Amino acid sequence: MAIVLGPNRYGKAETRVVRVVREGGTHHIKDINVSSALSGDMEAVHLTGDNANVLPTDTQKNTAYAFAKKYGVDEIEDFALLLARHFVDSQPAIHHARVEIEEYFWDRIPVAEGPDLGLRDEQHSFVRSGREVRTCVVHYDQDGGTSVVSGLKDLVVLNSTGSEFHGYIEDEYTTLKPTSDRILATEVSAQWRHRGDDSSSGRSGTGSFGRSYTEARQALLDAFADTHSLSLQQTLYEMGRRVLNARKEICEVRMAMPNKHHFLVDLEPFGMDNDNEVFFAADRPYGLIEGSVLTDDAPDAGYAWN
Amino acid sequence: MAIVLGPNRYGKAETRVVRVVREGGTHHIKDINVSSALSGDMEAVHLTGDNANVLPTDTQKNTAYAFAKKYGVDEIEDFALLLARHFVDSQPAIHHARVEIEEYFWDRIPVAEGPDLGLRDEQHSFVRSGREVRTCVVHYDQDGGTSVVSGLKDLVVLNSTGSEFHGYIEDEYTTLKPTSDRILATEVSAQWRHRGDDSSSGRSGTGSFGRSYTEARQALLDAFADTHSLSLQQTLYEMGRRVLNARKEICEVRMAMPNKHHFLVDLEPFGMDNDNEVFFAADRPYGLIEGSVLTDDAPDAGYAWN
Amino acid sequence: MAIVLGPNRYGKAETRVVRVVREGGTHHIKDINVSSALSGDMEAVHLTGDNANVLPTDTQKNTAYAFAKKYGVDEIEDFALLLARHFVDSQPAIHHARVEIEEYFWDRIPVAEGPDLGLRDEQHSFVRSGREVRTCVVHYDQDGGTSVVSGLKDLVVLNSTGSEFHGYIEDEYTTLKPTSDRILATEVSAQWRHRGDDSSSGRSGTGSFGRSYTEARQALLDAFADTHSLSLQQTLYEMGRRVLNARKEICEVRMAMPNKHHFLVDLEPFGMDNDNEVFFAADRPYGLIEGSVLTDDAPDAGYAWN
Amino acid sequence: MAIVLGPNRYGKAETRVVRVVREGGTHHIKDINVSSALSGDMEAVHLTGDNANVLPTDTQKNTAYAFAKKYGVDEIEDFALLLARHFVDSQPAIHHARVEIEEYFWDRIPVAEGPDLGLRDEQHSFVRSGREVRTCVVHYDQDGGTSVVSGLKDLVVLNSTGSEFHGYIEDEYTTLKPTSDRILATEVSAQWRHRGDDSSSGRSGTGSFGRSYTEARQALLDAFADTHSLSLQQTLYEMGRRVLNARKEICEVRMAMPNKHHFLVDLEPFGMDNDNEVFFAADRPYGLIEGSVLTDDAPDAGYAWN
Repeated sequence: MAIVLGPNRYGKAETRVVRVVREGGTHHIKDINVSSALSGDMEAVHLTGDNANVLPTDTQKNTAYAFAKKYGVDEIEDFALLLARHFVDSQPAIHHARVEIEEYFWDRIPVAEGPDLGLRDEQHSFVRSGREVRTCVVHYDQDGGTSVVSGLKDLVVLNSTGSEFHGYIEDEYTTLKPTSDRILATEVSAQWRHRGDDSSSGRSGTGSFGRSYTEARQALLDAFADTHSLSLQQTLYEMGRRVLNARKEICEVRMAMPNKHHFLVDLEPFGMDNDNEVFFAADRPYGLIEGSVLTDDAPDAGYAWN
Repeated sequence: MAIVLGPNRYGKAETRVVRVVREGGTHHIKDINVSSALSGDMEAVHLTGDNANVLPTDTQKNTAYAFAKKYGVDEIEDFALLLARHFVDSQPAIHHARVEIEEYFWDRIPVAEGPDLGLRDEQHSFVRSGREVRTCVVHYDQDGGTSVVSGLKDLVVLNSTGSEFHGYIEDEYTTLKPTSDRILATEVSAQWRHRGDDSSSGRSGTGSFGRSYTEARQALLDAFADTHSLSLQQTLYEMGRRVLNARKEICEVRMAMPNKHHFLVDLEPFGMDNDNEVFFAADRPYGLIEGSVLTDDAPDAGYAWN
Repeated sequence: MAIVLGPNRYGKAETRVVRVVREGGTHHIKDINVSSALSGDMEAVHLTGDNANVLPTDTQKNTAYAFAKKYGVDEIEDFALLLARHFVDSQPAIHHARVEIEEYFWDRIPVAEGPDLGLRDEQHSFVRSGREVRTCVVHYDQDGGTSVVSGLKDLVVLNSTGSEFHGYIEDEYTTLKPTSDRILATEVSAQWRHRGDDSSSGRSGTGSFGRSYTEARQALLDAFADTHSLSLQQTLYEMGRRVLNARKEICEVRMAMPNKHHFLVDLEPFGMDNDNEVFFAADRPYGLIEGSVLTDDAPDAGYAWN
Repeated sequence: MAIVLGPNRYGKAETRVVRVVREGGTHHIKDINVSSALSGDMEAVHLTGDNANVLPTDTQKNTAYAFAKKYGVDEIEDFALLLARHFVDSQPAIHHARVEIEEYFWDRIPVAEGPDLGLRDEQHSFVRSGREVRTCVVHYDQDGGTSVVSGLKDLVVLNSTGSEFHGYIEDEYTTLKPTSDRILATEVSAQWRHRGDDSSSGRSGTGSFGRSYTEARQALLDAFADTHSLSLQQTLYEMGRRVLNARKEICEVRMAMPNKHHFLVDLEPFGMDNDNEVFFAADRPYGLIEGSVLTDDAPDAGYAWN
């Protein structure tokens, strides 16, 4: 029996880049969190500590900052592709790069010239929107393979009615009562896989990933709101289906959705009824529903989900 | 030397109440986190474990739920006052109540009848806005004293220019370079004290605390955006001043504002300049600026800030 | 193009079970966090909301509690296997179960009869040890396949010397200086795969997983401390190798180890040298090293790592 | 009505310092988190942004690092006093300094020469003990006043029996059933005030604050374990009392103790009894008990608790 090295990767995680662009007195900001992970000829560094094939994680961080200056940061998928290609194409020993980016959203605080006057020319004040986080994971391989997964997380949604749960298996450990009206609340983590990278998916220029994101997000929200739900699984499937219908360049959607339980409080001891009016929002435990929805012609995922 | 009991209080913290109101098919939700703390004749329970004067924290929780049903939840200050008065007025051994509430905001997900049609009559879908948290702390004393402090937290704001820092003390441990252009970013925690409770501050009906909140928040944002800052202290003071100018029922504003450092990345080693374009957003350490701004006729704070 | 359901699972996450066993006046406690996830004939629930094949997550939670009473909780792997087998074997529609458990450790607070006297017969006081968390993930399939992965997380270790880093690739974005003496600190997350389930790995009775855990943990610590490190990858590999050498029932070790950077503070501006004496412990970004070490006769992993 | 500046302070928070001392091949580490806050003549900086009286927070950070080198870090109270005195004594405009330090504990990973051999001369490997965090808050005023508060947080303890709760007020919202046997669990945050600073409390040399800490901590643990509890308040008071009895230099103890509820699971639906064997550890809401225990000759607290 011999001991061998299995799958491995290394990189710099959570490099926080804020990029400012000045357009006259009007500023634009992009606030992202970049994590890169590289793999390749890494036997030596693991077995003997020989770093000859190692591009230091510190250099990966520097590259993120230098590229932010050099190329700017527009759609996070594009920026991730730039970085991934650079690492693999510039270093023979690096065969594969995975770049993950999170984007945090800011709204403008509009500044007026004065009471009853228009906006000032200078606009450089922002407030974190607090909305969900936009995400992407890009893989680039020296054999030319590229995958792009976009997504979001921390999108918290709630239906105060239009959700039922009944007809389930009952065994000796079942105490749950069926219900035809409950709160359904979840925190959506969703990732969607593009059929190809930017070129093969028919993008005609900068901004395509942005439109794709906006419409996929809207499809998720619409499906959540529109679906009269008999189970959270049904809602999840419908959300994935809508994304696939809305955006043809997307071939698979994976979601993880905790069932954030809102329990009806028993007010009977106080002589009150509770017709779905007062709820206790519980922390743990929670249901957790995970699932994938895809088109039957989806290409092989390869390393897209790694 | 004898050992004695000093200041004390006890209560139920973080009771998560979600209150739904159905107006036909249109639902309204209120999502709050209630913490109550009581004090009074509590020698016996501390010294001998005699609970005769103890209203159990479980009962405090139940009361929050029962009151949410009975009275609904409109402005959090009003709901906190209801609870505080109930605990003190109904229990002779309870002399003082402190009730703290956080409110989380939700936006509607609008649901249409269909493509190109209007909104459906049923609207019961929501998405967490992710905005800052609204807060209040109310004190009610059996001697009749009442104090109301409103506020917010997690309000993250950033100016990408319009901030300088120079002219400070330089000693043997100073290495910081003066700057006439930097990013100023902070996460505002602000609390403002009302001159009286609802009645004495001239409120004329339900909703006043809501208007007060909206305008105080706007004053904070406007001041942050409008102020050309020579120090974060100056910005803090100006933010407090604006709130006091905007709302006469407010007599004091207390703020805690971390200086969320955004360091200019040195790109010179890569042959690039960096004219305030690429920043590293640091986590720790951070500056922390705390201060109070008040009117010179502000009544004594009493226990308002406890 | 049709839309289809891909891989999916659902369950109850983070059921917090505390199990007390009384042995006369001496109590024993077991503090665990149980997450179960089931899969099987789940087309209907996703496509139409038909729950006929769904064992509710609430029932999964109840089962964890009932089994804690019925069977007690000894080694977490054994308890996870009990649950996984129960779900699959009792429900034809459930084909596969994944059960994950975390265990938190407590130490005794010894109670004496009095000064200079021995311990009391009653011992029921505990303090959270704060040590790392023990983990396991068990899979059980209706086709009889079983996999057991044990592990730990939150194990924070540091070498204050005996770590070098040099000889790496230098490109145009490299600014890092080589070093022959640095702090190496990391927070170990490690998981190790057993060759078989309890029976096939030669266990002769209750407690075997416990011995396996104790020795695997010790091997990780010993390897971290013993290895003069030229890179964190080398340390990671050596840690995996030691575990495999120490415990023959283990065939693969996967680790994720952030490089928790400790930067030497530049004290020269203050006229001081800094011979590896004063460090700044940074939060983000951090290096992240992930890797697997396995034996060349390791059986196929199957779904063990899912 | 004029607007004025109220109480204020500013400083650098959470400077993470790791100090290594080499004693031959044996290393010692000290891992601390330093926060300083200064106040004084700060009208100008708030009103006009004039920083002439401002010692930058960056300089405060540098000072912490430089002092760690110059003086080493032994007891955190001593290090905090050094910093506080330096800021006030060296800067006329700074009238008052508050320095707060947290200390994280590490254990050694012993390294042997080889199997069956003794320990190596080189010992420089550590594992985070994960125990509670030690804390201190020191105030130093230009008028010479000094206060020292020591403490700990994150000390999680549990009694699996020996706790009752009954005889409390029952009102119309009471549903809780009295119990004569429950789990009592809490996470202790405790702070204790010393009668004077190091000199006035009769310290005879380095290490006194360490002994004081060790014995105060032991008193808290012993009291928690020894007390048959009729309420968490009783336990809190007894814990404070024991600390005061154990250490004469301590004149007041303040504690905040959440009641981490462990609810007995109802197993009756499954035909099982539950004689305090299986518990659900709940997250929120939780009871929260806060109280102070002091000696009747305790000097005025001044700004000690600010």
